[in-house]
Amino acid sequence: MEAFERWESEVRSYSRAFPTVFASASGARQVDEQGRSFLDFFAGAGVLNFGHNDPRMKRAMIEFLEADGVAHSLDMATTTKRDFLEKFAATVLEPRGMDVRMQFTGPTGTNAVEAALKLARKVTGRPDVVAFTHGFHGMTLGSLALTGNDYFRAAAGVPLDHVLRVPFETAPGGGTAALDQLRALLADPSSGMAPPAAFVVEVIQAEGGVNVASAGWLRAVRDLARDVGALFVVDEIQVGCGRTGSYFSFDGMGLDPDVVCLAKGIGGYGTPLAMNLVRPELDAHWSPGEHTGTFRGQGLSFVAGRVALTYFDDDELMSRVRARGERMAAALTDLAADVGAGYEVRGRGMIQGLDVGDGALAKAVAAACFEAGLLVGPCGTGGRVLKLVPPLTIDDDDLAEGLDVLAAAVRRTA
Amino acid sequence: MEAFERWESEVRSYSRAFPTVFASASGARQVDEQGRSFLDFFAGAGVLNFGHNDPRMKRAMIEFLEADGVAHSLDMATTTKRDFLEKFAATVLEPRGMDVRMQFTGPTGTNAVEAALKLARKVTGRPDVVAFTHGFHGMTLGSLALTGNDYFRAAAGVPLDHVLRVPFETAPGGGTAALDQLRALLADPSSGMAPPAAFVVEVIQAEGGVNVASAGWLRAVRDLARDVGALFVVDEIQVGCGRTGSYFSFDGMGLDPDVVCLAKGIGGYGTPLAMNLVRPELDAHWSPGEHTGTFRGQGLSFVAGRVALTYFDDDELMSRVRARGERMAAALTDLAADVGAGYEVRGRGMIQGLDVGDGALAKAVAAACFEAGLLVGPCGTGGRVLKLVPPLTIDDDDLAEGLDVLAAAVRRTA
Amino acid sequence: MEAFERWESEVRSYSRAFPTVFASASGARQVDEQGRSFLDFFAGAGVLNFGHNDPRMKRAMIEFLEADGVAHSLDMATTTKRDFLEKFAATVLEPRGMDVRMQFTGPTGTNAVEAALKLARKVTGRPDVVAFTHGFHGMTLGSLALTGNDYFRAAAGVPLDHVLRVPFETAPGGGTAALDQLRALLADPSSGMAPPAAFVVEVIQAEGGVNVASAGWLRAVRDLARDVGALFVVDEIQVGCGRTGSYFSFDGMGLDPDVVCLAKGIGGYGTPLAMNLVRPELDAHWSPGEHTGTFRGQGLSFVAGRVALTYFDDDELMSRVRARGERMAAALTDLAADVGAGYEVRGRGMIQGLDVGDGALAKAVAAACFEAGLLVGPCGTGGRVLKLVPPLTIDDDDLAEGLDVLAAAVRRTA
Amino acid sequence: MEAFERWESEVRSYSRAFPTVFASASGARQVDEQGRSFLDFFAGAGVLNFGHNDPRMKRAMIEFLEADGVAHSLDMATTTKRDFLEKFAATVLEPRGMDVRMQFTGPTGTNAVEAALKLARKVTGRPDVVAFTHGFHGMTLGSLALTGNDYFRAAAGVPLDHVLRVPFETAPGGGTAALDQLRALLADPSSGMAPPAAFVVEVIQAEGGVNVASAGWLRAVRDLARDVGALFVVDEIQVGCGRTGSYFSFDGMGLDPDVVCLAKGIGGYGTPLAMNLVRPELDAHWSPGEHTGTFRGQGLSFVAGRVALTYFDDDELMSRVRARGERMAAALTDLAADVGAGYEVRGRGMIQGLDVGDGALAKAVAAACFEAGLLVGPCGTGGRVLKLVPPLTIDDDDLAEGLDVLAAAVRRTA
Repeated sequence: MEAFERWESEVRSYSRAFPTVFASASGARQVDEQGRSFLDFFAGAGVLNFGHNDPRMKRAMIEFLEADGVAHSLDMATTTKRDFLEKFAATVLEPRGMDVRMQFTGPTGTNAVEAALKLARKVTGRPDVVAFTHGFHGMTLGSLALTGNDYFRAAAGVPLDHVLRVPFETAPGGGTAALDQLRALLADPSSGMAPPAAFVVEVIQAEGGVNVASAGWLRAVRDLARDVGALFVVDEIQVGCGRTGSYFSFDGMGLDPDVVCLAKGIGGYGTPLAMNLVRPELDAHWSPGEHTGTFRGQGLSFVAGRVALTYFDDDELMSRVRARGERMAAALTDLAADVGAGYEVRGRGMIQGLDVGDGALAKAVAAACFEAGLLVGPCGTGGRVLKLVPPLTIDDDDLAEGLDVLAAAVRRTA
Repeated sequence: MEAFERWESEVRSYSRAFPTVFASASGARQVDEQGRSFLDFFAGAGVLNFGHNDPRMKRAMIEFLEADGVAHSLDMATTTKRDFLEKFAATVLEPRGMDVRMQFTGPTGTNAVEAALKLARKVTGRPDVVAFTHGFHGMTLGSLALTGNDYFRAAAGVPLDHVLRVPFETAPGGGTAALDQLRALLADPSSGMAPPAAFVVEVIQAEGGVNVASAGWLRAVRDLARDVGALFVVDEIQVGCGRTGSYFSFDGMGLDPDVVCLAKGIGGYGTPLAMNLVRPELDAHWSPGEHTGTFRGQGLSFVAGRVALTYFDDDELMSRVRARGERMAAALTDLAADVGAGYEVRGRGMIQGLDVGDGALAKAVAAACFEAGLLVGPCGTGGRVLKLVPPLTIDDDDLAEGLDVLAAAVRRTA
Repeated sequence: MEAFERWESEVRSYSRAFPTVFASASGARQVDEQGRSFLDFFAGAGVLNFGHNDPRMKRAMIEFLEADGVAHSLDMATTTKRDFLEKFAATVLEPRGMDVRMQFTGPTGTNAVEAALKLARKVTGRPDVVAFTHGFHGMTLGSLALTGNDYFRAAAGVPLDHVLRVPFETAPGGGTAALDQLRALLADPSSGMAPPAAFVVEVIQAEGGVNVASAGWLRAVRDLARDVGALFVVDEIQVGCGRTGSYFSFDGMGLDPDVVCLAKGIGGYGTPLAMNLVRPELDAHWSPGEHTGTFRGQGLSFVAGRVALTYFDDDELMSRVRARGERMAAALTDLAADVGAGYEVRGRGMIQGLDVGDGALAKAVAAACFEAGLLVGPCGTGGRVLKLVPPLTIDDDDLAEGLDVLAAAVRRTA
Repeated sequence: MEAFERWESEVRSYSRAFPTVFASASGARQVDEQGRSFLDFFAGAGVLNFGHNDPRMKRAMIEFLEADGVAHSLDMATTTKRDFLEKFAATVLEPRGMDVRMQFTGPTGTNAVEAALKLARKVTGRPDVVAFTHGFHGMTLGSLALTGNDYFRAAAGVPLDHVLRVPFETAPGGGTAALDQLRALLADPSSGMAPPAAFVVEVIQAEGGVNVASAGWLRAVRDLARDVGALFVVDEIQVGCGRTGSYFSFDGMGLDPDVVCLAKGIGGYGTPLAMNLVRPELDAHWSPGEHTGTFRGQGLSFVAGRVALTYFDDDELMSRVRARGERMAAALTDLAADVGAGYEVRGRGMIQGLDVGDGALAKAVAAACFEAGLLVGPCGTGGRVLKLVPPLTIDDDDLAEGLDVLAAAVRRTA
């Protein structure tokens, strides 16, 4: 580890929580240079939905490299990108009857969100955007203004303006009452609030503590957005791409978002990619090149991402995700019941959170897990929620083992 | 191309300028699906310093994939990352006696700039940042505020605050006189200007029109920054990594920046990576995780980037870059002299710009080049400058051919 | 009126609502140049609490002028100002045990509010201020940001930042529930809301529509402010100085504000004066001259204001105000009951509002009143509330006559 | 003085510089309660152009009070206001062929400036305003953003945005070169600067240190404003109303401003009044009541202000101002020459400044003057300039005596 202490910035964090040097990875496991194998229930903060080094993706990427595919293309047209576009349309869009355009932004989630904000402000001519408490949308100045966590916000060094803040459904004072109040305020010409450009919401706040919104509340957000002439933007960056048991976390809710922000899992192999799905009549407001970025055209990400989409050719993986999600929830619920009051389990599909009520405790549990060979990370206010986001493709034994390790660590630490 | 028209956002731009579908690429050439070969003098907007699909990098990446290296690691420690850190230190930092820390941000240039802004504001407690006219620093809200181009700025939809704007050396009213004026204003307690957190400058403004700053002026910027207690930040994203004939474009100038922002070429193969070099006493102001990002730990980028650094093990490539840069400059100068008044040649090493004085003309020349099999893109105000950034590794015949194609296109179009 | 049309700005408003030229005024009456007498239930928007040209004030002002008193003194010490300070302390502060400092700002309400904002931000080091829907605090940029009305706000031409907006007690979604929600948000480190510098509130929102807050809610605002380390600022500009039946509208509520903003009635005769009452430990944060203004020392205002304070030497005027306020409320309540559903009466003491539900109707009623010799003005959202603020010193016949005229106008127009 | 120490805010300043209690005032003299007479070369910071308690104004005000004139009228039409409008038109506007509308704002300079900013932003749809170093335009948030002095600015507690700062003609780096640079920046679409709504300038920066702009430079400012579609706003608050030897300080310069801001001297007797003169085609952008204020209609100010205008019925006063201004300048120049290097005399008409190079020295001189019976105040950066603004109506003996006292104080202190 000395090389990291000598050369890397003090800003590093995961290498402090997981103090070893990883050498290889496969499926749901990472192996360090001492040969110790760790079960990975963190999966790159929700990136590695299909595990480490998925063999089919790997093979496709090697073939792409050997064939001298276009690795970097900005937003030029390439055969690889066309394959991705067509596969995404055929697998995700057309079955859902979604008529949208795909906008590739810089390959990070924050870049997708920044592009969505620009478009919303451009379309409406309005500066303000509604964001929700406990939301996480990124670390650059536009998306950071939407992010709730004050630790991240304090690093901005400038005021984070142009955001109207509303409690998320599950936060104190949240629910539809808070939306009704916002509706009343926006309808009131003496409220001092101007109508917003957009509502930006996560279906499940992953970084925010695995807070799960209901379909009804999300529809109420959507309705309010539509009624006040604002765009309805769903940030699917962490919980899209199959994490909840369907491709989108909002499938079946009838939400019909104006913009869907995708990143993390979309590139398949941990290879960077980000993409907004935008309704064509809104997308038409873009002029060419108004939002650009160097790494919009990543050949390896298109290749791996296209293979990843084959996991959605049938319902096999998704039905397993739903089943395993239930197993995870059941195990956590039993554990919570067992260790006593003050623990709460939240989640859907294969994102499950165990709220242990206190950041220091969660940190101690995570450390105990690491010692016992399980990678798990905290999220939520003060880091009080242990977030379980194993690869969707994890096998049943690994899943059971990881849940056991966690339970033991909680029991030992609590 | 129909798939792109059908599915991709209207914001796409290069696929309009280069209306064909590329299927493969090698060295300085891209080949479209009709088998037509194009010389690439654009090189991914300065990303592909070592050409498309460099064989040594390709081999290393395939080996890495086959060995199940850790492809995605956030900021965990991996053997691959350590190799990169150590190689960068040995090749770049130690020979220069640079005592800095490496901060990996999200893998895009804009993310590196946003992190630098946060740190500068945090260290100084000041909100404002000095940026220069014609500068380009990214498309997210913090870096966009520093960017000069009004087409990009207008897309923000909110005021772009907290920036003090100063003419770049080569802009009208620029030079040290403008710095002297700023110094006077900052010294004057009735100027209405508070001292800034940072000066953020490019040694060569690439997107801004290949505007080359002198060492003297850059030192004057640095001195002014130091004298007013501000950080001196050099944005090397487009012209670092060997483009100008040395690893940093500021090598030999005695600048000693507080923060150096790197991206684009650092990942070697077009694979995304971004990194800030930060003086340790400034880096110590970071708390763990204050600036994070999902794609900070890209195994493929570390592998390719490490191989790329071997190009700097000796001076062979750099001396060739300097020689070829002179050849390019000479060819462009001859051309400019030949076609008449109003043309100007600017550049250093293998970034050379031909300012044709008018965006429509530059566009027509670029279109003629495309027709003749050469990829070249415009930059600068209104797109009036043809920017030549071929791979540093281009062979002499390709370079000569490309320059000939360009010259013919200019003569035909002018 | 031609002179006004020829020479005065299009921004003029009351001269359009009351289209005649006034030549003199006395007590509760203004007389136009045709000799027509109007009962004044508007009283300079709440300035003329003691009527037009109060004889005792007039005499004192003439004596002051004849004695060559210091008419204009910035913030120099004058005998006239000292007399005012001592009279205010003896009459208002000492009986209430209020330990405060008097800060004379520029002589307008907005200036007092701007000074209060500066002090709150300076004391706390925080930029944001909580303001309430339907609040009115002034027209300069700092106080306008707090004002709710979108007609006024839209004229700013720049974003009105650094304000957290909360529903006033009587607004939809208001009450203590909204305060509880704000408390929860401010306690939540992931809410995206930083603690504010101040809560700025009116006890009765006069311009906002005669919205009357309860003592309990105001105490809850105060408690919340204290609990989050913010200043509790009461804007008494329109309803202080005896309007509600006691000197302060918050007398007897146990509020103990950190800053009280006074203007309008404090100068007695319509002569400009504004003053903040500031707790000494907060006032100590001011450095000399940090907030200045040319017209802080108005001799005529000090003279008239000092005489006005003699109205508070005993309870006679205040008990009459309370009694007349009840008479006004009763008359309006009868009227509202009589004309049918949709009318609402609100107020306390001698500020009473009749909400007729619609701005066009209120305007028509006011016009009918003017025709019948009564000056009354609308307030509230869209101007839907007729606001009755006659001089506190009005005699019973005039009050009865005015109420009759109003009732007739309402009946005729409704 | 104890009453002031006990009751008045710590923010008070002039009562510290002039530590006595003034009881009466007449012409160019103030008398304290011990009967000591002070020559007043400060004149209410330029308010009392016609001296303290001008007998004709006093008589007119007493008559107005005795006749029960309308003392407070918001923006209703009154006979007194009409008299003022017509007198101002006849005396000031018509002889100059100025076709403008008069907008009465709240009666302070800062309110006039805030109204001008709103109108400029409304007319142009642009947020930014050009202001000059060392400018002073007021203390409320909008006008404070334009003010240069960092002591005043630091009290804002929020960022002061939407201002482009340019050196004043006489500041380091000023002159037409700075305007040329701004012109180039505004013409450059990659400058990062958007065209402004207005240029706001003082002909003589009074608070800023008696910095005198030339007609040529002011015309260049005006031309630049016109060329970029911005309003040209002249802040005449301190040096208008005859101070420089003509009614406007810009008379004869051919400036033709879009908006002229007037306050201070316009009310004649130290009675508050502020007024913008606005070109009709711009004024037409106002909607009724978009900028309001309680004290827009001050009867006493209209009466005194109308009498004050009679001083401009012929050239007698103005020619005396010009002659006395020359005498003042000559006396100061002799003094400066006498006491040695580092002193500078600046001014025009009866505003003259002696720059002694250092705030502590200026303060000591002012204190010595006070001891010797002369009121004079410092201005400029750090308070290094003694500003002489005696009443325009001062008699020759008082003027000579004051200049002698000052000279003695300087000689003794220097």
